[in-house]
Amino acid sequence: MNIEIHMEELKELVETKQFRKLKFVLEKLNEADIADFLEDLSSEQATLVFRMLSKDLASDVFAYLPVEVQRELINGMTDNEVQNIVEDLFVDDAVDMLEELPASVVRRVLENAKPDTRKTINQFLNYPDNSAGSIMTAEYIALHKDMTVSQSFDYIRAHGQNKETIYILLVIDKSRHLEGVVSVKDLLMHKYEDHIQDIMNTNVINCYTTDDQEEAANLMKKYDLMSLAVVDKENRLVGIITVDDAVDVLQEEATEDIQKMAAIVPNEQTYLRTGVFDTWKARIPWLMLLMVSATFTGLIIDSFEAALSACVALTGFIPMLMDTGGNSGSQASVTVIRGLSLGEIEFRDILQVIWKEVRVALCCGVTLAAVNFVKIWIVDRTLFGRTEITLAVDAVVCLTLMLTIICAKLIGCTLPMLTYKLGFDPAVMASPFITTIVDAVSLLIYFELAKTLLDVL
Amino acid sequence: MNIEIHMEELKELVETKQFRKLKFVLEKLNEADIADFLEDLSSEQATLVFRMLSKDLASDVFAYLPVEVQRELINGMTDNEVQNIVEDLFVDDAVDMLEELPASVVRRVLENAKPDTRKTINQFLNYPDNSAGSIMTAEYIALHKDMTVSQSFDYIRAHGQNKETIYILLVIDKSRHLEGVVSVKDLLMHKYEDHIQDIMNTNVINCYTTDDQEEAANLMKKYDLMSLAVVDKENRLVGIITVDDAVDVLQEEATEDIQKMAAIVPNEQTYLRTGVFDTWKARIPWLMLLMVSATFTGLIIDSFEAALSACVALTGFIPMLMDTGGNSGSQASVTVIRGLSLGEIEFRDILQVIWKEVRVALCCGVTLAAVNFVKIWIVDRTLFGRTEITLAVDAVVCLTLMLTIICAKLIGCTLPMLTYKLGFDPAVMASPFITTIVDAVSLLIYFELAKTLLDVL
Repeated sequence: MNIEIHMEELKELVETKQFRKLKFVLEKLNEADIADFLEDLSSEQATLVFRMLSKDLASDVFAYLPVEVQRELINGMTDNEVQNIVEDLFVDDAVDMLEELPASVVRRVLENAKPDTRKTINQFLNYPDNSAGSIMTAEYIALHKDMTVSQSFDYIRAHGQNKETIYILLVIDKSRHLEGVVSVKDLLMHKYEDHIQDIMNTNVINCYTTDDQEEAANLMKKYDLMSLAVVDKENRLVGIITVDDAVDVLQEEATEDIQKMAAIVPNEQTYLRTGVFDTWKARIPWLMLLMVSATFTGLIIDSFEAALSACVALTGFIPMLMDTGGNSGSQASVTVIRGLSLGEIEFRDILQVIWKEVRVALCCGVTLAAVNFVKIWIVDRTLFGRTEITLAVDAVVCLTLMLTIICAKLIGCTLPMLTYKLGFDPAVMASPFITTIVDAVSLLIYFELAKTLLDVL
Repeated sequence: MNIEIHMEELKELVETKQFRKLKFVLEKLNEADIADFLEDLSSEQATLVFRMLSKDLASDVFAYLPVEVQRELINGMTDNEVQNIVEDLFVDDAVDMLEELPASVVRRVLENAKPDTRKTINQFLNYPDNSAGSIMTAEYIALHKDMTVSQSFDYIRAHGQNKETIYILLVIDKSRHLEGVVSVKDLLMHKYEDHIQDIMNTNVINCYTTDDQEEAANLMKKYDLMSLAVVDKENRLVGIITVDDAVDVLQEEATEDIQKMAAIVPNEQTYLRTGVFDTWKARIPWLMLLMVSATFTGLIIDSFEAALSACVALTGFIPMLMDTGGNSGSQASVTVIRGLSLGEIEFRDILQVIWKEVRVALCCGVTLAAVNFVKIWIVDRTLFGRTEITLAVDAVVCLTLMLTIICAKLIGCTLPMLTYKLGFDPAVMASPFITTIVDAVSLLIYFELAKTLLDVL
């Protein structure tokens, strides 16, 4: 790919105002690349270049632009230009854009849309955020079951030009109830005079407008679908979800999970386009909550002040115990969270998960405790000559380590599953939250063991 | 979806040996659901039920099964049955399977394949793991540019039955060099007598067999492609990647990133199918490394033993400082890592990223320090009556908190970017690793400030 070189050349052309040459080059580029290029330009330059594009190319490029650039372009357009863009966009792209634009711009866009388009857009805008309805498109091809293959091809030729996909054709009755599905491949593999009803697959996999978009995308992934029919409560076809939108949903959901796992309030904008204040707003709630919860860990340490003064060697091992506990817990929780979100684990597997984590925790605990025991004895005591580390201290540290790891893995695997069962997103039960709990648990174990075995306090 | 109910009924049928009824029901199910059902059966039951499926359905179902079940089934098959399955599988599915099977089973499968199939499979097995070549399929349709639309349709009708996708057609010359691409939609929108060379798009987006699979999948996502042509070094067409495989790659890569972020060595098997020993092997290396690194944090505490005994109030704030620092660092690192992997951030953006993180860190630092200052004064000192917490101690804690957050965010955003620049996967520079570094940094700040401002030591 030599897109990068193109970009530099194109910018050069804009800056030296060689517009005729620029136009010639742009016509040869892919719309996604032109969108990338427009993003890098100033607002005035972008408007200027966008105007150069042919009408069809313009709306294709428009659909690939981030919403900030779309807004800037709309602000620089005449009403007529706005109307052309809106009419040419697929409904789902138009709706995606309108959901992010300020109310004044939305009004201007809707005022310039034709009545039919306006009606469809308004209907789509009413589907709840993150629902299957909000990502579906209205541009699909529907056939009737008494059509022949030959008639179907004529119909596709007549109506397919502006449809987002023509390869999956839905078969509906007169009241738009979904009856079956047939692919262009099926049509091509049958004789021209065959009837749709003899070819169609009546076992249609579909979803409802109100289903969660992630559910719909997972359905498409599971069954390797190119498009998924969306029906309303009365089983009437209202739209389809295409695979490119499903891919975006899966990627967004993965990003959202990752953000939640890192104690960030999810945010759909890309990093560089999010302002400092918005980034602060996404990060501060969890930081604040976790900071306040860490107070309890502090209280535990304070209440064992006497033990710590009696045996000063104990303090130095606190970070290692807390970190190892936190890491062990995160490993379990993150694995379980991802398994739940990919549908590989269900709540009914909880006993199997716990049984497995206990065994893994035992293996990890024994390994780490053994290595740590030897390391403390050889490095800390012998090499560094820290004679205050007795065999008993070493034993307390390593026993704590093992018990902490077992508790951490248990907490790490059960908390997300319980959260999931209660209907919340398990992703918030990841590293930072688990770490805070495990910190407290590990210190309690540590000090109780020290009190019992070391005769301090 | 009432798949769950189906499953119970189907199991009942197996257990009561109502095989005729079972066969009847199975024929109506989707192949992905049948595969789900087989997974839940014992090895003998699965073999028995699999034998009931019609030949075509059997190989479709086979492609959806996890490799462990595939192996069990193959072990129970005659050579003839193995041959039928291998010939019917798409090459990419066959290769996926063979890559995971033990050598003895692979030999048996290859011995039972026809010479042509064997040659293709062997060629595919030679592409490096995680390369575009390893996920492509050889079942595509290629046209020549002097064909007409009508001839193309005849060709598709004659050769399309066993192709994975027929909608994107690649145009090649006599030496298989890629010349263009045309979709069935393009064909349908043109007259039957038009020539391919007048319709085809010569601006083909393609990748090379040796490209990383993630790059190929991102390319498909960026350009909303249904399939991507894969060429060899001489620009000769060797295969295509279909969108369902690209979706799997994107999901796998997200899972891999999440695993690395949680200090787990990535593993492609699903959680419940990974043995205890393999899970241990995936988790122990980072736990061990991080445990040993945490020793340094311990050394810092030990070297400030005198300061800690002089001012016992200091110890209790250590967990809060370490945790908040760790969380702040993770937020920055995870955001940057995800941005890098989605292609939203490049190394050249490093100054912009640092400038942004500094400002966000300042906002977060000031907010948290202020809240903490008031909380310590009101709750810890006044409510709990801990008079050893002087105004100076409170100031040291909050100043440390602010400086730690700034350092944590800086380390959190720069380390992944540098790792990326050096050609390594930035995902390993996530929470656990950052936490360990930030722990040490926060303690150093804490004790230095305490020494300077509190006159201890």
